[in-house]
Amino acid sequence: MTEKVVGVLGGMGPEATLSFYGKLLANTPAQRDQDHLRVVIDSNPKVPDRTAALLGEGESPLPMMAAGLEALERAGADFVVIPCVSAHGFLDELRAHTRLPVLSVLDVAAEEVARHRPALRTVGLLGTTGTVESGRFQRTLAAAGVATVVPDRQDQHRVMSAIYSIKGAGAEAAREEARRSVAGVGERLVKAGAEGIVLGCTELPLVVSARDMSVPLFDVVLILARAAIAAAGREPRAREKA
Amino acid sequence: MTEKVVGVLGGMGPEATLSFYGKLLANTPAQRDQDHLRVVIDSNPKVPDRTAALLGEGESPLPMMAAGLEALERAGADFVVIPCVSAHGFLDELRAHTRLPVLSVLDVAAEEVARHRPALRTVGLLGTTGTVESGRFQRTLAAAGVATVVPDRQDQHRVMSAIYSIKGAGAEAAREEARRSVAGVGERLVKAGAEGIVLGCTELPLVVSARDMSVPLFDVVLILARAAIAAAGREPRAREKA
Repeated sequence: MTEKVVGVLGGMGPEATLSFYGKLLANTPAQRDQDHLRVVIDSNPKVPDRTAALLGEGESPLPMMAAGLEALERAGADFVVIPCVSAHGFLDELRAHTRLPVLSVLDVAAEEVARHRPALRTVGLLGTTGTVESGRFQRTLAAAGVATVVPDRQDQHRVMSAIYSIKGAGAEAAREEARRSVAGVGERLVKAGAEGIVLGCTELPLVVSARDMSVPLFDVVLILARAAIAAAGREPRAREKA
Repeated sequence: MTEKVVGVLGGMGPEATLSFYGKLLANTPAQRDQDHLRVVIDSNPKVPDRTAALLGEGESPLPMMAAGLEALERAGADFVVIPCVSAHGFLDELRAHTRLPVLSVLDVAAEEVARHRPALRTVGLLGTTGTVESGRFQRTLAAAGVATVVPDRQDQHRVMSAIYSIKGAGAEAAREEARRSVAGVGERLVKAGAEGIVLGCTELPLVVSARDMSVPLFDVVLILARAAIAAAGREPRAREKA
């Protein structure tokens, strides 16, 4: 029994964590309950808004995320994943706070994107304003040899509004509008040179899918789920299950 | 802040826990992340098969479930729900093991069914062989004034096979066969006098839905999710979201 226990610092937002957990199960080869991995999830949606904090406009989410890491440690997790890209703006502080390894979604996403070089050299990044302005995702992609284009100010505002709208879990109509809006921004990034689109916020794959884009799409939730299965010591299903 | 932290002793099976978590989110009134409840989940699919143990044919799941309760306590849960009906065959031992209150799915399901009296006096129970043979669900329903009919030996075997097939997470064809098989057993219970059907195993709502039955259906996963929201101190959404 060398399988590791997956710890999920979740709830940011909760539906993204639900989707992560679903993709983790769907991508684990299993014929019965006992073939699945043990997963411990702290879904704490009370964590203050990550983007507001990254922009210096809101309460720090760090104390509550740190408490979540402690809860996961005590519950028996062997390593941690965080299905919230914006939260990775605090990755250094989070890593300093726990003895558990934290698997960075930025690292595993950049690695996955880089596997498509040299055909793909430039990606468009769709994420929260906190993620885009902090620049950490772009630097991680650059270190993996991939250039990034990001939306202009007005389009970034559209993406952020769409993300809050998805979190609102409101009417289907609002989700459909969010999907269209994000797809439009994505296509403008393609015109600006993007050969692929990174859905760099865990809320976006809840509404946007490959058929919304004319170029390959990278779903950070799916990538993180498959990376977590591998980090736990298992081979993910050969065929991706979104 | 009087909201309680929901602890989920999960993974039995993991897809049922995923579904429970999804129904909990869908039935929580929320406009943004922070409106949702904190939920701590120990999804441990390694817990030995509950039915085998209840029939005296397999390893006890108690030690691993007890360890899960300890993990939830340490992680900060205020009370516990178990989205596995068969596991409730061990409810007394589990309650003796933890200082946390455990909300019984049998109690909340019986309460929900009883709300439909006197129009509904008899329900058909579809569950694992462990659940049906232990008789605990039937006694809880009887205490709430509701009579129960259960499948005959051959039909019970069909239900159990369907449940293992759902857990197998195999081809869509296998799920479709499971759905048809369970629906057929349900209809035979209706002929035997059932005025409603209790999907008394958390795997069954993954494939069977209201349109498969000619009488009202009680989904224990949905009932438990809404009861957990209420136990945490919140009013579930007025309209059920399956």
